[in-house]
Amino acid sequence: MQNPTAAVLIIGSEILSGRTQDKNLNYIAKSLSDAGIKLVEARVVDDIEDHIVDAVRTLSGNYTYLFTTGGIGGTHDDITAECVAKAFHKKHDFNAEALKLLEDYYGDRINDARRRMAMIPEGATLIPNPVSVAPGFRIENTFVLAGVPAIMQVMVDYIVPMLATGTPIIQETIISQILENDIAKELADIQKNNPDVNIGSYPSFYQGKYNLSLVVRGRDKDKVAKAVDEIKDLTQ
Amino acid sequence: MQNPTAAVLIIGSEILSGRTQDKNLNYIAKSLSDAGIKLVEARVVDDIEDHIVDAVRTLSGNYTYLFTTGGIGGTHDDITAECVAKAFHKKHDFNAEALKLLEDYYGDRINDARRRMAMIPEGATLIPNPVSVAPGFRIENTFVLAGVPAIMQVMVDYIVPMLATGTPIIQETIISQILENDIAKELADIQKNNPDVNIGSYPSFYQGKYNLSLVVRGRDKDKVAKAVDEIKDLTQ
Repeated sequence: MQNPTAAVLIIGSEILSGRTQDKNLNYIAKSLSDAGIKLVEARVVDDIEDHIVDAVRTLSGNYTYLFTTGGIGGTHDDITAECVAKAFHKKHDFNAEALKLLEDYYGDRINDARRRMAMIPEGATLIPNPVSVAPGFRIENTFVLAGVPAIMQVMVDYIVPMLATGTPIIQETIISQILENDIAKELADIQKNNPDVNIGSYPSFYQGKYNLSLVVRGRDKDKVAKAVDEIKDLTQ
Repeated sequence: MQNPTAAVLIIGSEILSGRTQDKNLNYIAKSLSDAGIKLVEARVVDDIEDHIVDAVRTLSGNYTYLFTTGGIGGTHDDITAECVAKAFHKKHDFNAEALKLLEDYYGDRINDARRRMAMIPEGATLIPNPVSVAPGFRIENTFVLAGVPAIMQVMVDYIVPMLATGTPIIQETIISQILENDIAKELADIQKNNPDVNIGSYPSFYQGKYNLSLVVRGRDKDKVAKAVDEIKDLTQ
């Protein structure tokens, strides 16, 4: 098999206006490089439907994988999911699994904007978002990720090991309100004692609330469960 | 006259391998935005001749201006100048003015690699490099700049005031602590009722604090002010 190649498509007028310095490209570039996947091209486009659709078609056609970042929130300027659906000639509709995740998470605060984050192309599979629930998704060779770096990173960390190995990765998330630096040493010991899983620590402030998401990833169900138990003992 | 548009082409495998975090795009984006030139697209390509030539042709054809960064040093992997020559069907040869600059600067230390930095497309005009002499150049609507940020920046500062600029873009930001999806519908209505401005919604967590930045951009002061007032009514 030829070595796999990839492209990145960054969607967002805030990068092109100079308001925001993109940090996602560098994170994806490093992750792919570590996994032996060659990132050959990146593009940054405005929130303009034709530009996004054209870029998705071109880049997904030219490379083994395409990663997009940004534009999957619930507001009017978030048009990535519908553009990707169009690029692949798919219906853009509610995904039952995503809708349930959002309704369970938001409860009474669910509204049309939040429900809209469950609209994804037909046939897509979800990419978990342990930080703020609203999922990314994969369709064909294209991975559609959040633009917020903390969320984008955890999605990349979930996806890339699957690409390199072709073996599905199991991911479990333990959420707590402990400050990560208060358990850094113990967590490092757990990682050391569980070398076949990967433990990620992702602090966040979302919806006005501090959370520490501790994410365990691995290919062996029992090994993941063992590390999860040790982290639960540490944090609860 | 229509407002001018621009694209940026970042040339360099070090960005795509993840070794280097690009900082040039953000600098160019801000400079163009301040000058009223709309940056519509950016691309990052590897040091591969066909990719560079294709990107230069496409982007210089689609937009008023194209800015390239990187690949104009003296080593074997610096192929930007010859690729740009090829894209514009020009000869790639020594430029007498550039050669003199380099010979005067390097004196005894001149060698083939340094002389090579004087090879630029026929008909191009030089862009001064007060930092390390080796010039950039302009050919047709394309500006070929250094990749080193300190040099790139002084070149941008030299060029931008000479360009046909549009009406500067005014940008106003309203910061609140409202969750964006709680006002998504009302915000979409404000965007619909104010079609000559662009409204972006950017949630962030910084220093442990949640902020929602609502950014209004437009060329007409009164229209921007009207949209800002409506957003203030919504969020305050």
